[in-house]
Amino acid sequence: MQVSVYTVLGRKRPITTSRNLKHSVYQKLMTNEQMTQLLREFIPLCNFMEIEITDLHPDQITAAAPLAPNLNMHSSGFAGSLYSLAAATGWALLHNFMAVNDIAGQLVMKQASIHYKRPVLSDISLTCSLAPDKTEEHVQQTLEQGLNVELPLRVSILSDGKKCAHLDADYVIHT
Amino acid sequence: MQVSVYTVLGRKRPITTSRNLKHSVYQKLMTNEQMTQLLREFIPLCNFMEIEITDLHPDQITAAAPLAPNLNMHSSGFAGSLYSLAAATGWALLHNFMAVNDIAGQLVMKQASIHYKRPVLSDISLTCSLAPDKTEEHVQQTLEQGLNVELPLRVSILSDGKKCAHLDADYVIHT
Repeated sequence: MQVSVYTVLGRKRPITTSRNLKHSVYQKLMTNEQMTQLLREFIPLCNFMEIEITDLHPDQITAAAPLAPNLNMHSSGFAGSLYSLAAATGWALLHNFMAVNDIAGQLVMKQASIHYKRPVLSDISLTCSLAPDKTEEHVQQTLEQGLNVELPLRVSILSDGKKCAHLDADYVIHT
Repeated sequence: MQVSVYTVLGRKRPITTSRNLKHSVYQKLMTNEQMTQLLREFIPLCNFMEIEITDLHPDQITAAAPLAPNLNMHSSGFAGSLYSLAAATGWALLHNFMAVNDIAGQLVMKQASIHYKRPVLSDISLTCSLAPDKTEEHVQQTLEQGLNVELPLRVSILSDGKKCAHLDADYVIHT
């Protein structure tokens, strides 16, 4: 059912009820606490890892987690935990970007690579920024052409002020 | 403290007490239950994800996990959980391979790539085999030359009998 229209490249396109329903789950201008709660409530692993969003902006994010629930056999950060914290941090950045800019669609991860440089021996922090060319206009125009939007992100994983690993993840927004 | 020697390239090299201590944690011929317990006891995330080793051999492994603790926002498998389960499965295969073949050294993951093909909508299974050229002799000879051993593994991630993702991980045994 057609419920509203908006102008795209000089012509009007319908927005369906289904699309609006998907869109309705987004909340604009989320606080650090709201994003932390969203991750922990809907992704059990994020709750167990005790991820915390510490600074959330439309184009950048920082997050943190304690070492204790994320240990491996060698009493350093488990490779899987570091990956999972980074994947969730990147997802949170893009989810917030979509919410703030009224972008509808399903956000998923397509593929990712992670490089481990040094052991994580204390609490973990993560940082990520959106590439400058991934603007709201670029994303909206691509979706309105019926295409998926590819959004590559690099998430840095730090401990004791040193870069210990980085994740290069390719997220996709499906129309 | 020097406690024993072995011959490497025509000369004798010491094996330290520290090295023997590291080696002593390995148990030969582990059962599925023992490997499951080892992962869950020493990696908190593995306990939370409810990973279970279901078939363990020196050159291949299968593992399983329920979907419930590994969900994401879309009620399918969380990208981080799938990665973490695969990373632990590969680690378990190599840990057992080292134990069975009396290979000493520290096993770590250097880097990895994961590709997600379709959503995981029910319980998860994982399979992995060691490459035929990664024999005990190859590993021992490389270590005895004072070099690290690179051990690439592919871990397949399945659900409902279909391949949903695969992890290509580069593990390293440090001397």
